[in-house]
Amino acid sequence: MRGTVAIVATMDTKGVEMAFLKERIEALGCATLVIDIGVFEPEGIRPDVSRHEIAAAAGSSIPELVAGGQKRRAFETMSEGAGRKIDELYKAGRFQAVVTAAGGTGTHLVSGALQALPIGVPKLIVTTVASRDVSSIIGSKDVTLMHAVCDIIGLNFMSKGLLATAAGAITGMIVPKPVPPADRRAIGLTSFSPLNGCAFSATTGLRGLGYEVVPFHTVGSGSMAMEALIGQGVLRGVLDLSLHEFVDWIHGGYCKSIGPDRLETAGRMEVPHVILPGGLDMAAFECTSLEGVPAHLHDRLFVKHDFRSLIRSSGEDMARIAAMVAEKANRAKRAPTFVLPCRGWSSVDAPGKPFYDPEVNQVFVSGLRSLLGKHVRVVEVDANINDEECAKVAVEEFHREFQRKP
Amino acid sequence: MRGTVAIVATMDTKGVEMAFLKERIEALGCATLVIDIGVFEPEGIRPDVSRHEIAAAAGSSIPELVAGGQKRRAFETMSEGAGRKIDELYKAGRFQAVVTAAGGTGTHLVSGALQALPIGVPKLIVTTVASRDVSSIIGSKDVTLMHAVCDIIGLNFMSKGLLATAAGAITGMIVPKPVPPADRRAIGLTSFSPLNGCAFSATTGLRGLGYEVVPFHTVGSGSMAMEALIGQGVLRGVLDLSLHEFVDWIHGGYCKSIGPDRLETAGRMEVPHVILPGGLDMAAFECTSLEGVPAHLHDRLFVKHDFRSLIRSSGEDMARIAAMVAEKANRAKRAPTFVLPCRGWSSVDAPGKPFYDPEVNQVFVSGLRSLLGKHVRVVEVDANINDEECAKVAVEEFHREFQRKP
Repeated sequence: MRGTVAIVATMDTKGVEMAFLKERIEALGCATLVIDIGVFEPEGIRPDVSRHEIAAAAGSSIPELVAGGQKRRAFETMSEGAGRKIDELYKAGRFQAVVTAAGGTGTHLVSGALQALPIGVPKLIVTTVASRDVSSIIGSKDVTLMHAVCDIIGLNFMSKGLLATAAGAITGMIVPKPVPPADRRAIGLTSFSPLNGCAFSATTGLRGLGYEVVPFHTVGSGSMAMEALIGQGVLRGVLDLSLHEFVDWIHGGYCKSIGPDRLETAGRMEVPHVILPGGLDMAAFECTSLEGVPAHLHDRLFVKHDFRSLIRSSGEDMARIAAMVAEKANRAKRAPTFVLPCRGWSSVDAPGKPFYDPEVNQVFVSGLRSLLGKHVRVVEVDANINDEECAKVAVEEFHREFQRKP
Repeated sequence: MRGTVAIVATMDTKGVEMAFLKERIEALGCATLVIDIGVFEPEGIRPDVSRHEIAAAAGSSIPELVAGGQKRRAFETMSEGAGRKIDELYKAGRFQAVVTAAGGTGTHLVSGALQALPIGVPKLIVTTVASRDVSSIIGSKDVTLMHAVCDIIGLNFMSKGLLATAAGAITGMIVPKPVPPADRRAIGLTSFSPLNGCAFSATTGLRGLGYEVVPFHTVGSGSMAMEALIGQGVLRGVLDLSLHEFVDWIHGGYCKSIGPDRLETAGRMEVPHVILPGGLDMAAFECTSLEGVPAHLHDRLFVKHDFRSLIRSSGEDMARIAAMVAEKANRAKRAPTFVLPCRGWSSVDAPGKPFYDPEVNQVFVSGLRSLLGKHVRVVEVDANINDEECAKVAVEEFHREFQRKP
């Protein structure tokens, strides 16, 4: 037996289809645990965890939901119950992977529950509503979305093909997961491509000092996943090379999806945290012409990138972000260290490059210095962020913090 | 050997990681075909299809792209070349599934190429940019997105776990695909949940007549996938129960992502096509309060649904959609048949329900009748769309069309 796959779906409308999925998963050598999150009588399948247990987990009951007759209330109750029950079953070792197949309602009903499972547990959602904004479905978890091009209603040659493919995927995803090497300290490093020089040098330096470096892409969800992993105790420190998500957050850019606890988990968990202002010079937008950029930014310096375009941040942006970052740093149970390069904060914010503007950057530096508590260490480096010298200082500061008893 | 997996990535930046993925895929019993779409020298891996072949497929060369030094131009050329080469290799039987792992640039570089592959070929994209609007990555194809919470830069315990999971998923996805039963005719049926009554009755009726019914969810991408499958000759007719995507398309709603050829492929392929106005009474928005709805709709009738809310369509909407639909029908090489129920077009547009408004619906009916060519058959049914009678007429009309020689 390779493990147990939880099959979570509304078995009143998807019972027959889930029975087929169950059969395919079992044929591939896995056990199954069928969890019914529908409100009405299941059809064509016998659930292992009933809808009554799900409703009860949210302090309600199926008769109460049916009598109420309110679709929205039933949705919220079953969603809450599914979250609690799935978490409980996972912690009890009842399954090692989870799969669901659904349309819009079912997908959103289950996706909240999947957010509660740790990163590393295979999570597959087969859904007709994949080709759109799925940030509320995926969040910052390692969810896999399989786009169901045909609807999952009834069995036909296409839906059978889809469900057989899903069975192959979810059973295949149950693989042994490597653990952090026992002799090395696992730490996070945030970056994005305009900081490649710095990220490469810093990673090399940190590895040389015995760290296992896990890079995270600062596209919103990536750094939020890192925050979660620090909170879980998986990562024991962070070298935050990039703050550029804050500019996107202000202007609704490509990497805007950070949550309120961005930059805060390291301080709360009292692990070493070094912060650089990488990418604060830019906001990114998914467009190739100025029309794709919000109107209030049309007077900004504009540069085409790949399928995205970049806008130069302003002094006003810098002052606002300095205040946010300083407030977080001052509130930390263990304060971060700031390393501030003086000659630009990305590959386009470098001498001779279009976004190079030390005066604007200085607004951030001055703001930060004036607002930070005296206990917060700030180190300036007379270099561009991608110069060897900057990475060297960042690594030294991180290592120094790591060796210091908090 | 279970089949060959094409590994497509920029091997200048992802060579080491893709070498690990290749090793894991081969350990699971599949062969691999490594396709390099990077511009610079590959590192840590030996591609089977070189970047030179990709550039050449787009009528360019690597030295030309490097000398040009324009990132955007290189991106477009390699994207175009990858599309052509991957299509050619697939048609030559060189691989049966495809996987890529990438950040933002790489994901968009490959996703266009994957759109050219037929539905049914396993397509897995492991990406850091999954938790957002992915409509330009998934399109209307059966793409699977695995959210890479850590960045795919270098090998560490987390990236190894991610890539091992991806190897398990893509090899697992290579399963035998069922084909349409030889003795039945495969046809498409579009619907969404407010038409469940009609969809259920119509499906039962059609199955009784020997059709293999494949339902599609009218969320934009679903019906566009159906259009593609008609174009590929997989589906031999369509019962289009739902037109509601046109209302969302006008107002930027949840199911807006239809393309210009929506409703047109059946006519072009000269297969039977019956159209009902299901869901034309509503636009759907992903929100639970009026603030989530565009301001110009704030005076409309508003109903909360699940995680979405609904707005009543107007007479103006109806006139506009009637003109669009009539123009498409008149242009078809084989004309569709319209079946128009007189007592409402969804479960909320029914006598006694909030969206019931025969006067507004009549604007569509009158507009359509005045604009359609005389050769286009229109049948009115004195029933709600979800009444048995309506489905019965729709099925009869479809079957009649199917038996008629075009």
